[in-house]
Amino acid sequence: MRIGIVGGGAVGLLTAAYMSQSAHVTIYTRRHEQAEKLCANGLTVIYGDEKTTHRVQATPFVCETNDDVLFMAVKQYDLTNIFTTHVHMLQANAIIFLQNGMGHIRYVSHLPHKHIALAVVEHGALKVDDTTVVHTGVGQTKWSVWRGEQHAFSFLLRTSSRFPFQYVDDWETMLLEKLMVNVLINPLTALLRVPNGMLVAHDPYRQAMEQLFHEVASILHIEQRERIWQHVQTICRQTAANRSSMLRDIESGRRTEIDAILAYVIERANEQHISAPISTFLYTLVKGKELEGGKGR
Amino acid sequence: MRIGIVGGGAVGLLTAAYMSQSAHVTIYTRRHEQAEKLCANGLTVIYGDEKTTHRVQATPFVCETNDDVLFMAVKQYDLTNIFTTHVHMLQANAIIFLQNGMGHIRYVSHLPHKHIALAVVEHGALKVDDTTVVHTGVGQTKWSVWRGEQHAFSFLLRTSSRFPFQYVDDWETMLLEKLMVNVLINPLTALLRVPNGMLVAHDPYRQAMEQLFHEVASILHIEQRERIWQHVQTICRQTAANRSSMLRDIESGRRTEIDAILAYVIERANEQHISAPISTFLYTLVKGKELEGGKGR
Repeated sequence: MRIGIVGGGAVGLLTAAYMSQSAHVTIYTRRHEQAEKLCANGLTVIYGDEKTTHRVQATPFVCETNDDVLFMAVKQYDLTNIFTTHVHMLQANAIIFLQNGMGHIRYVSHLPHKHIALAVVEHGALKVDDTTVVHTGVGQTKWSVWRGEQHAFSFLLRTSSRFPFQYVDDWETMLLEKLMVNVLINPLTALLRVPNGMLVAHDPYRQAMEQLFHEVASILHIEQRERIWQHVQTICRQTAANRSSMLRDIESGRRTEIDAILAYVIERANEQHISAPISTFLYTLVKGKELEGGKGR
Repeated sequence: MRIGIVGGGAVGLLTAAYMSQSAHVTIYTRRHEQAEKLCANGLTVIYGDEKTTHRVQATPFVCETNDDVLFMAVKQYDLTNIFTTHVHMLQANAIIFLQNGMGHIRYVSHLPHKHIALAVVEHGALKVDDTTVVHTGVGQTKWSVWRGEQHAFSFLLRTSSRFPFQYVDDWETMLLEKLMVNVLINPLTALLRVPNGMLVAHDPYRQAMEQLFHEVASILHIEQRERIWQHVQTICRQTAANRSSMLRDIESGRRTEIDAILAYVIERANEQHISAPISTFLYTLVKGKELEGGKGR
């Protein structure tokens, strides 16, 4: 079986490593340099004291893919670019989307693929260099069929116990829950420069997060508010020492996923003519930090 | 003429230095140690390359003052403490308040003093140590009589051209304008850890400041909105390289003036049953940073 992974970031590399245990994996990277290094050195996963190197194929994403299944593991803003100009290159029988947020759903319906799945990755992963990823926290990848049949993805059942997949029926609830987690944890930790745990351990930050929660939950018509609010706090406690991906992006002067996450919420508010003062204020501040880049810090 | 200055912070020391050129000045400090050092070493003002040391009296604020005029140069939160327990010690014919915010006005009406003035300090001042203050920016001190007669403060006209006083008729507008400047510049610079100029030079930050401006202007029923909004931006540009006092407080793990500034705005909103989402969110975040103290940074 041939599996293609589009994207050589932390999530792409982690997925590629575990998939390569039972399939022929090709990683499609943005940069030539990363593809060359992956072909030459293999892909290394560090988990605790354990270090495993996997042989993988890698090629820059400039020509057509040729796989049975494609994992789309690029950030949402890169996905927009791919859908706009390179969608004909995504040759595969089945395709799985691993993006945060919900903004990518609008593109999915235009795709020609017979089987389409949506997934959310709940692992901790940190890319160390072009060929090395640290598996910092074992979680699961929830997935749901958006179009086509579940059995087209049956290979997901054969993966390592350290990289399990869990099927859920309702893709919208799955994505909404992940979106809520990302909306509440990522921008605040990035702005305050604190690890995830501080958002619940430090009372004023928990109050600020709760203010944001109520605003966003209203905009997105979240049902079972109390359950979701508890879920978000549990994630903060379980990943207490982690620095969120958005915080790491800000610290490294990289582009963040703030548009996929908070701009999406603001758009939904605008559509409904609801005001979103806190989301808008927070979005502007984080966007400012992002554009500040390496300057002034 | 005997002038007492209650408070040995940047504003107190700066005022004491310039007042000591034409009057007998006593500084009332919180700590014994500072009073001893001031008596022994004098009070030094640094302005550009110029360094001037003034002889002053200093004593801890534990016994009655005995002056013609008192300048109250403590932070608003310390003023609350003084008014609650030590108000009988403030013996003077006239008294001038130099606090930021407007929360102290409620106490002023209970004072026995015949002549009461309110003032706002628009100088840049940085306390280097217990006996040294740097005059980083020459501005003016606006003042207005709250009770009594203007001539009781006529000595203010005789001060140095580097420390001018300007009389204004309307104390409420004077304090409101200063409050707006403080509300807009201090919490945002403290949270974002940027110098004042970034709030206008960096588009997303200016947008965030404008969002906050509209919310607060509504709560405080600010007239002439456009003029005040331009005024705030002008101050940001004129003090572009300055790090605000609240930013410096946060960086040093000291208590900030967030309660005198933003909590006052939130209280006013609550009284009127108006929501203040951005002010509340920003207050909580800055309060969190303040309570974090030296930790996690």
